Amino acid sequence: MGVDPGLTATGFGVLETGPRGVTVVDVGVVSTAPGESLEARLDAIYRGVYRIIEEQRPGLLIVEDLYTEYRFPRTAVLMGHARGIIYLAARQLGVTLLALTPSEVKRAVTGNGAAGKAQVQRAVQTLLGLERLPSPSHAGDALALAITGMARSLGRVPAPRAPVARPAP
Amino acid sequence: MGVDPGLTATGFGVLETGPRGVTVVDVGVVSTAPGESLEARLDAIYRGVYRIIEEQRPGLLIVEDLYTEYRFPRTAVLMGHARGIIYLAARQLGVTLLALTPSEVKRAVTGNGAAGKAQVQRAVQTLLGLERLPSPSHAGDALALAITGMARSLGRVPAPRAPVARPAP
Repeated sequence: MGVDPGLTATGFGVLETGPRGVTVVDVGVVSTAPGESLEARLDAIYRGVYRIIEEQRPGLLIVEDLYTEYRFPRTAVLMGHARGIIYLAARQLGVTLLALTPSEVKRAVTGNGAAGKAQVQRAVQTLLGLERLPSPSHAGDALALAITGMARSLGRVPAPRAPVARPAP
Repeated sequence: MGVDPGLTATGFGVLETGPRGVTVVDVGVVSTAPGESLEARLDAIYRGVYRIIEEQRPGLLIVEDLYTEYRFPRTAVLMGHARGIIYLAARQLGVTLLALTPSEVKRAVTGNGAAGKAQVQRAVQTLLGLERLPSPSHAGDALALAITGMARSLGRVPAPRAPVARPAP
């Protein structure tokens, strides 16, 4: 399970390996209303993420590692609030956490540690055989984390799935 | 109740007003071991702060507002993890949160919004009639927050207590 913490939208993506390859079990975002208090928003993120971890019981929860440089410190500190909540929920439910650097995730899904955001989203779509680009992008980022965490556990990145056959127009 | 969030040591201080003035009901720090995982440390802060809130049932929980400038973003983001945990615990226990700027706290306890750290600690000692300087300083910072929050609620800063009478040497 990958989680992309954010106060407005915390993305999550749960992957499973089976005989038919890697499958997306659950994907989405836990959203909060900007008008609500910080504590209400953190509580909503906590309850949302806690429920998904409890339902899915992932073997590993992957988040992005802390950057060493932040362009918008206030935003980064607020993200830290959400990230702390997610660490707490995972700990309370006994799930192992793994933090990966952005460049490791980019390298794992695109082959290029300096890939752009759009390139990562397209790679997630291809690797998981999704019909559309992941949406919202926070969900796609969470799936990228899950792919990388799974690749680490399995020792390889999943091979791209065959394109879905479509009827001729 | 004032709380000064920190990953290594989260300070707390609980004040009460009564016929004999303002009394320190509880003060201290929730400490975590640097060798432990981030999730274990956050869990320890959560359990520690949750228990104190549950025991003391404060009317208000006061924390420092987010700065707009951070000199050490990584440290600030880690502090954000702890701060998020405290917001969550307060919310779960139905305690109202109040965030105060550092300058408001300094002004309330020392009369000077640009006071230094040592000056704040000495003012806390004087205002609360403590025999010694608050120790560790995180606990003193939490008491400063509690004093300021109480002053806001009461519409005034507590008057310094008369020095404790001591037997002549």
